[in-house]
Amino acid sequence: MQQNQAKWIWYPGDYEIYHSLLLHGRRDERDWRHPAFWRLDDCWHNVSFYREFSLESPVEIEVKINGTGHLTMDDIPAPCGKFTIPAGTHWLRIWVYKPGGLPCAWVSGRGLDSGEGWLAGCHDGEFLPAGWSEWYAAPDSDPEKFPFAYEQLRPVSCQKDGKSTLYDFGKETFAQLQVKTGSKPVFFCYGESREEAMDSVNAVIREEVPAFTETTLQARAFRYLRVDDETGETGFQAMYEYLPLERRGTFRCSDETLNQIWEVCAYTFHLNSREFFLDGIKRDRWVWSGDAYQSYLVNDYLFRDEAITRRTILALRGKDPVKTHINTIQDYSFYWLMSVGERYRRTGDLSFVRGLWPAMKSLMEFCLSRTDEEGFVVERPGDWVFIDWADLDKKGGHCIEQMLLVRSLETMAEMAVLLAEDGSRYTQLADALREKVEQLYWDEEKGAYLDSFRSGRRFVSRNTNLFALRYGFDRDGRRESIIQNVLLNDEVAPITTPYFKFYEMEAWCEMGKLNFVREQIDAYWGGMLRLGATSIWEAFDPREEGAAHYAMYGQPFGKSLCHAWGASPIYLLGKYFLGVDASADGFTVRPELGGLEWMEGTVPVQGGTVRIRLDGEFLKVETDAAGGVLLWKGQQISLSAGNPVELAINK
Amino acid sequence: MQQNQAKWIWYPGDYEIYHSLLLHGRRDERDWRHPAFWRLDDCWHNVSFYREFSLESPVEIEVKINGTGHLTMDDIPAPCGKFTIPAGTHWLRIWVYKPGGLPCAWVSGRGLDSGEGWLAGCHDGEFLPAGWSEWYAAPDSDPEKFPFAYEQLRPVSCQKDGKSTLYDFGKETFAQLQVKTGSKPVFFCYGESREEAMDSVNAVIREEVPAFTETTLQARAFRYLRVDDETGETGFQAMYEYLPLERRGTFRCSDETLNQIWEVCAYTFHLNSREFFLDGIKRDRWVWSGDAYQSYLVNDYLFRDEAITRRTILALRGKDPVKTHINTIQDYSFYWLMSVGERYRRTGDLSFVRGLWPAMKSLMEFCLSRTDEEGFVVERPGDWVFIDWADLDKKGGHCIEQMLLVRSLETMAEMAVLLAEDGSRYTQLADALREKVEQLYWDEEKGAYLDSFRSGRRFVSRNTNLFALRYGFDRDGRRESIIQNVLLNDEVAPITTPYFKFYEMEAWCEMGKLNFVREQIDAYWGGMLRLGATSIWEAFDPREEGAAHYAMYGQPFGKSLCHAWGASPIYLLGKYFLGVDASADGFTVRPELGGLEWMEGTVPVQGGTVRIRLDGEFLKVETDAAGGVLLWKGQQISLSAGNPVELAINK
Repeated sequence: MQQNQAKWIWYPGDYEIYHSLLLHGRRDERDWRHPAFWRLDDCWHNVSFYREFSLESPVEIEVKINGTGHLTMDDIPAPCGKFTIPAGTHWLRIWVYKPGGLPCAWVSGRGLDSGEGWLAGCHDGEFLPAGWSEWYAAPDSDPEKFPFAYEQLRPVSCQKDGKSTLYDFGKETFAQLQVKTGSKPVFFCYGESREEAMDSVNAVIREEVPAFTETTLQARAFRYLRVDDETGETGFQAMYEYLPLERRGTFRCSDETLNQIWEVCAYTFHLNSREFFLDGIKRDRWVWSGDAYQSYLVNDYLFRDEAITRRTILALRGKDPVKTHINTIQDYSFYWLMSVGERYRRTGDLSFVRGLWPAMKSLMEFCLSRTDEEGFVVERPGDWVFIDWADLDKKGGHCIEQMLLVRSLETMAEMAVLLAEDGSRYTQLADALREKVEQLYWDEEKGAYLDSFRSGRRFVSRNTNLFALRYGFDRDGRRESIIQNVLLNDEVAPITTPYFKFYEMEAWCEMGKLNFVREQIDAYWGGMLRLGATSIWEAFDPREEGAAHYAMYGQPFGKSLCHAWGASPIYLLGKYFLGVDASADGFTVRPELGGLEWMEGTVPVQGGTVRIRLDGEFLKVETDAAGGVLLWKGQQISLSAGNPVELAINK
Repeated sequence: MQQNQAKWIWYPGDYEIYHSLLLHGRRDERDWRHPAFWRLDDCWHNVSFYREFSLESPVEIEVKINGTGHLTMDDIPAPCGKFTIPAGTHWLRIWVYKPGGLPCAWVSGRGLDSGEGWLAGCHDGEFLPAGWSEWYAAPDSDPEKFPFAYEQLRPVSCQKDGKSTLYDFGKETFAQLQVKTGSKPVFFCYGESREEAMDSVNAVIREEVPAFTETTLQARAFRYLRVDDETGETGFQAMYEYLPLERRGTFRCSDETLNQIWEVCAYTFHLNSREFFLDGIKRDRWVWSGDAYQSYLVNDYLFRDEAITRRTILALRGKDPVKTHINTIQDYSFYWLMSVGERYRRTGDLSFVRGLWPAMKSLMEFCLSRTDEEGFVVERPGDWVFIDWADLDKKGGHCIEQMLLVRSLETMAEMAVLLAEDGSRYTQLADALREKVEQLYWDEEKGAYLDSFRSGRRFVSRNTNLFALRYGFDRDGRRESIIQNVLLNDEVAPITTPYFKFYEMEAWCEMGKLNFVREQIDAYWGGMLRLGATSIWEAFDPREEGAAHYAMYGQPFGKSLCHAWGASPIYLLGKYFLGVDASADGFTVRPELGGLEWMEGTVPVQGGTVRIRLDGEFLKVETDAAGGVLLWKGQQISLSAGNPVELAINK
């Protein structure tokens, strides 16, 4: 018998919703807090946990709760604590109430340990499999506390100028300050850039700590820290706050800049991988569905930590009733729906989909309630049609929104089949809409999809046509037409955000243009590094100079200098250079150097890792996972654990 | 210009939902807490407040928030605090976030004071008129604290027996104990009866306070208090906790027992009138929709405090989505729906109905989703068909549930007309169901409505036929048939709970049998008083003896000895003896002595009070309210403020 298998349990999804509520209230902006501008749900505060069981002999049991409450065994109420359950068939129900917190229970007893097998309900007439995490196995662990790790940071340099001292920590970081002030208040000015730390007025994050105070400030993003301390009596130390995540993906190659880019991308991505996948660590420090949709893919090639992906999906969705789009953004609802299907294809875990099915249905009903008489999703009051920070023609229903709705409907239909639910309505709607999109949004003369067929502008964007490729709207020669008339057409405005660069680079990779992609990564991501970036920025325009790079949203330091959506090279290098494409059923490896002399790296897959080394002379692939196939020069070579494949390259 | 018109504002309904969440976690039961077994919703924790305005000259403004956040004026963000708004047209939005609490704002500034005119939203795409209360006008008042008043209580006697001391406070009360212990722990055992206080094992409420502790215990119900204090070092005092409410209804008559009954009922009712109308103050101390439905009527004749009625209605409903019946009870959903319509008829305030309309619709949709193919509401998994603690035939859809559904549908139709919404579907459903009920549940041979026409038992209950009278299912001679075959038929089981005694006595009053009702009140309520009751009990069976009166639900002291549903004599004496029936449009007075020599009293009505005195020689009616009509021996005599009517009685 194993000891300590018990884990704290909660209502499913409520751990995520509780921590999401806390997270979305932490955004700083100068002298105030800037809570998220969408509805934030809270966990249920009155729940119960349930289990039926049969015992052959009596069992000693211990029940602890986070909150107040009691238990009933076979309908007889009793306080929680330690007691003996006699042999026989019983049921146990634990009632836990905690206003302002996350009600949880912990049960230890042979065969009855809390975790798998326990149900949870919020008194709405249903019991569902309880939520739990390996993190909270110890009886004194607290699911209301997120298990961050801390390490002391030391500045690499320090410059004193009168009462001011500027500390440089060498690179972007995220840390709590433990502060003890003396006889005067002390002013802390945080900067992702030196310029920001020196600008007391425009720095996004700054805080004055009163005299004679010992405190720990909220963890925040910075590289530079300016401390204005008249007395010189203040002591402080910076504690790096992070979620320990193992890098299971690696990449090294003959191009040192590319190695640095990969490293900075991985660091950027790790800084943003916390309770959930954040957009950026200085600002907004929120969870955005479109940003997260890309993070799921990057994660697949770096940590392959499915737990954080699931936490993010649960937090984004919140609770019913659905009254707005996710993050208020039309496209972001669709990314959420598609992500559930894509996760299933990646993991094969249907129980996660099953748990979300009611939430998928109600979100889809909300989306469908906002379509017009022709079935197109159009902008309704309160909807934000985001797509990208780019000049797009959004009038009368943007083409991308229709494509995403089609894919979301198809996802619903696919999941319905797996869950043995009736999804025929979704199939019908998807088929009808796909046909209409292909008919009405396609401009034969331009050989491209229009953003809007109703506006009369016949505006063609890269964004729309990239999505046509990505989501299968490119049959019957349209693929070639799009490549020719849009992707290779300099008259079509370029992609300017790292967000859509993700899809653009992915498209070039899919076309096999790895050399071009490598050059693009060097120019764009390498461009930031050459300007001294230690993490990837929210946006980058090589034509700008100096501190102008830090401005955005009308603020001198409004730009986030550590933004998750900049980490796409992790995904691109793993999927298209190392060439690993993994699903629940196995993985394929199709490495391509794309102009590099050599590369080596690992990619996590279902059940293990695959390691690839390719240079001008040899290809070596080894794995400890099952189900792998090496695709090499038209050949399919089975990969198996413990049997490395080594091939000499025929030049 | 008036100062201090500003009031704290919150998302509408959230003050009630927040305090309801707190309230429903306070039930004690021996050594544990017993939170309510239905879903408890919480307030939104991320809200914003909005107002547009035009200023002819600059205005100094102060903005305070309960929580963290900021404001935006004309889209420019700023911290809260004091500032000057320039002349011109502006909009102000205040963003407030408070996890674990009730986010509120307070704005003071000429013409911009928070309260009426401000909107609130929870980021679901809608702004609604903000909630507020006169209670929270002071800038340092705190809407998270319910404004109870406190008074020190002194015991009327005290009996020492070794380390134990038994205090008798003379009557039922509800109080916090302020305790300071000495070198040993001290045990407090509460009793609504002497027997309960003396029974450490079975007393429902008991608490041990550790040594060297100074604390205030949660307020609880008791008359007796036993303190086991080995050292004699403990000091404590009892602080009566109550909501100050003005008695606007009074009643005095020639029967001293009836006077005492009225007084004890009024006291019982006041003890249960707190954040909301409770069922009882010892146990459950919860809000139950069926109990509350009666409390609204008692309140009309005692405090006429519409605010507590509205708080109760809002707290009961909670938030969407509706997943169970209110309190999980089928009938209780219908009482809730009907109560909104009845409140409108009483107050004429359509804005309250308008605010609830979406919640009424979604609750009705839930109810309709649980009907069968014939339109009858039947028991679905998770539903509790309560009706009464009585032997009823609930198989296949109880008749009372159908009648309540009909009245609820009619209420929806009536409210729809007032709100200029389309209510035709409700009308159609109501008409069809009323006809079916009259057809299928009526048993011509028995001359009565059956509880169930499907069970085959042909069971006739007083409950069902009382509701047939109350809700208009008594046309075409059925009224007389029901009176003869049910109400006057000793073979039909008697009503045993004060809960349904309310409707039974009301029915006799409606039939003009005031003498009989007076005798019943004397026997039933007077019976409790003669046993020493200082508040009205949850149930009473005159055939029981001694401490057996205190037992219920299988526990020796399980019965609540201070239960709101026992206060119906307040309503009966006010409505049928003093004879005042008030609506939004005015009131009628039709006094009847019912065997008393004389009576006098007041009844609160819209806009004031009406005072009645009637004896064998004179009738005097005076009022300060408009719209009154005296109905006396076939005459209609208009009443007007300041013009008392005095009539000599013709014997």
